[in-house]
Amino acid sequence: MNAEIISVGTEIVLGSTLNTNTYYLSKRLWEIGINVLYHTTVGDNPKLLEDVVNIGLERSDLLIFTGGLGPTADDMTKEVISKALGLKLELNKNMEDSLKDYFNQTNRLMSSNNIKQAYLPEGAKILTNEIGTAPGIYIEWKEKKLILLPGPPKEMELMFNKYVIPMIQQDYTIKIKTINTIGIGESTLETLLMDIIKDQDNPSLATYAKEGQVDIKIIAKGYEEEKVNILLEDIVKKVENRISKYIYSCDDETIEEIVFNKLKNKNMKIAFCESCTGGLVSSKFTQIPGASEVFERGIITYSNKAKIEEVGVSKKTLERYGAVSEQVAIEMARGLLNKTGVDITLSTTGIAGPSGGSSSKPVGLVFIGIATKEDSYAIKSIFAGDRKSIQNRAALKAFDELRKIL
Amino acid sequence: MNAEIISVGTEIVLGSTLNTNTYYLSKRLWEIGINVLYHTTVGDNPKLLEDVVNIGLERSDLLIFTGGLGPTADDMTKEVISKALGLKLELNKNMEDSLKDYFNQTNRLMSSNNIKQAYLPEGAKILTNEIGTAPGIYIEWKEKKLILLPGPPKEMELMFNKYVIPMIQQDYTIKIKTINTIGIGESTLETLLMDIIKDQDNPSLATYAKEGQVDIKIIAKGYEEEKVNILLEDIVKKVENRISKYIYSCDDETIEEIVFNKLKNKNMKIAFCESCTGGLVSSKFTQIPGASEVFERGIITYSNKAKIEEVGVSKKTLERYGAVSEQVAIEMARGLLNKTGVDITLSTTGIAGPSGGSSSKPVGLVFIGIATKEDSYAIKSIFAGDRKSIQNRAALKAFDELRKIL
Repeated sequence: MNAEIISVGTEIVLGSTLNTNTYYLSKRLWEIGINVLYHTTVGDNPKLLEDVVNIGLERSDLLIFTGGLGPTADDMTKEVISKALGLKLELNKNMEDSLKDYFNQTNRLMSSNNIKQAYLPEGAKILTNEIGTAPGIYIEWKEKKLILLPGPPKEMELMFNKYVIPMIQQDYTIKIKTINTIGIGESTLETLLMDIIKDQDNPSLATYAKEGQVDIKIIAKGYEEEKVNILLEDIVKKVENRISKYIYSCDDETIEEIVFNKLKNKNMKIAFCESCTGGLVSSKFTQIPGASEVFERGIITYSNKAKIEEVGVSKKTLERYGAVSEQVAIEMARGLLNKTGVDITLSTTGIAGPSGGSSSKPVGLVFIGIATKEDSYAIKSIFAGDRKSIQNRAALKAFDELRKIL
Repeated sequence: MNAEIISVGTEIVLGSTLNTNTYYLSKRLWEIGINVLYHTTVGDNPKLLEDVVNIGLERSDLLIFTGGLGPTADDMTKEVISKALGLKLELNKNMEDSLKDYFNQTNRLMSSNNIKQAYLPEGAKILTNEIGTAPGIYIEWKEKKLILLPGPPKEMELMFNKYVIPMIQQDYTIKIKTINTIGIGESTLETLLMDIIKDQDNPSLATYAKEGQVDIKIIAKGYEEEKVNILLEDIVKKVENRISKYIYSCDDETIEEIVFNKLKNKNMKIAFCESCTGGLVSSKFTQIPGASEVFERGIITYSNKAKIEEVGVSKKTLERYGAVSEQVAIEMARGLLNKTGVDITLSTTGIAGPSGGSSSKPVGLVFIGIATKEDSYAIKSIFAGDRKSIQNRAALKAFDELRKIL
């Protein structure tokens, strides 16, 4: 099955929006064994889009569209495709009701142009959008499959994984295992695994670098599930043996989820005292549903006054070593532990930049403090990048240190 | 002049490489007044590429190709295009010499397949590549312009700016203004501006929705700069008058930057007391360089115990109204103001979900409290979406309320 991904949106052809949807979809389609042959992008122009649809129908079996499903006048992907296929648009009563519900629940007024989202090409199936108003649409037409997804990446990805993958998956088995690593660069990791990467066609192994982390994706394919499982497990074991100390998950979890689960299983409570990360550690942690079961409180002691008042850092220590120091990191963590009575605390203090650095304390210098009833200590790191990267890497490192001690 | 950007590379259609070249080129072309109508991406396959070239020649005046100019067997952009245009490839002596020089200078051996890079379609011009071996090529053919650039972004960008821009630049002026709005949905906004949107071709006006916010982009073009400015300012004023209460910036700033600048100008200090946003408000704020000038501290009172101990919320209020209530939001903000002595405080308390909701207090319900020396109050909102969206929208709303009061 040959696929084409068609992105609809003037903001893309004008260069206001980077097209990450095609990247995401190509990767996911490749993982389930579908060849993508073309990407096409066109602005919100019905005539040009119609030509693109007709070219796509001629050369591809599976056409995946993103964008142009919203309520406004320039959203017309559905209308143009229906016209090109000769299908009528019909009002879908369920869809109309669920739109009304959505607006009622969120206490917003449904504007008259929202109703156009409740129209579907005849014979098409709805793909529910749980986090937005624009539903997806699935059309089968003369041996071709057309899938219409909304443009916002979060909505598109959720719907693609939940509804589209089961509809288009080929009948051989594909198993994917993602191994998440931290604390090792992509090229070093690749060098360590080079013989495994080179030797293998099935399973295939690829590395994907994210900020401060590298994921290893292992993909095994075949017609017999049993054999595919064995192929996959073999390689996973090899990789695990080779780089075990950098692996924090084999289930594609985030590092904060790992920390959350460890704390929950041990029935422990945690609190954070942040300076340079400015709330990012707490914010990442509280994105996890149920965080309140283990997270007791967070304090962002951005000023020295706050460090003294909130967690009892001594004025002397601040004067002697400066706010960005091992000693202050430890006092922050210990002070918060004493104050709250939780089982473990973590602190951050550093220089996120762009200014404020010196030769002895450069931009990127971060101390992470950890305190438990038995022990307290600090870890020194120097991170590269701009302010946002430094804050991000510091937060990742903080969770990695928690993972290690837990 | 209508343009099409054609990217050649199997790594892109397979999802191993994010296509940033089209994004870059679209933005640059748009800035110099050239309409990009299509992006097309195709793998390293001569037959498929030839079809793509033929489609491009039919619908576009300017075709910019990236990728497939290297020395290896699967690099065949130049060969396929020459074939499609019926042009012979000729050995270019200068090019051959400069290739030899390049390899001599960099002390590398020139492999026999490198010589294929010295062949040019008859009548074409060379675009020198100063940082790589693959030269660019410029072809004029039957009123059409074809430009072939290498795939590596650094080489492509350098050559595009140095050689291509002067060749294709139009002689008119383009001015852009972005108006940032909050608190109004895209479709409602469009309804309010419909007559302006419909009436106008130049300047053109388009809306771009981000989570919880909508940007309005206004673009004016013309041959006389003075007239273009007047055109633009006219529409900007019309839009401002129509929807002034939703506009938070006319300079494409983030809402937290607006709040930061207002606080800084008024020489005020702020502190946050977060519950449902879990540190996100503080984290967004401390991403701004220099945040410490106005941000004194943040407290994430996730547990009731923390709300009582840290900011003196009364046990009675918590029992009577629950943690998610107007009363608690106000007590959090007021308590933090008393504790820290800053000029203004903001609090959040709500139900981010996915669980914890009830019919009287559904998931998405958020109270934002604000306290100053003169006043304290809370605002009730209900946000849609998943946990992350609700936290995000609540943080945006928090900054918007600060903007209004400041």
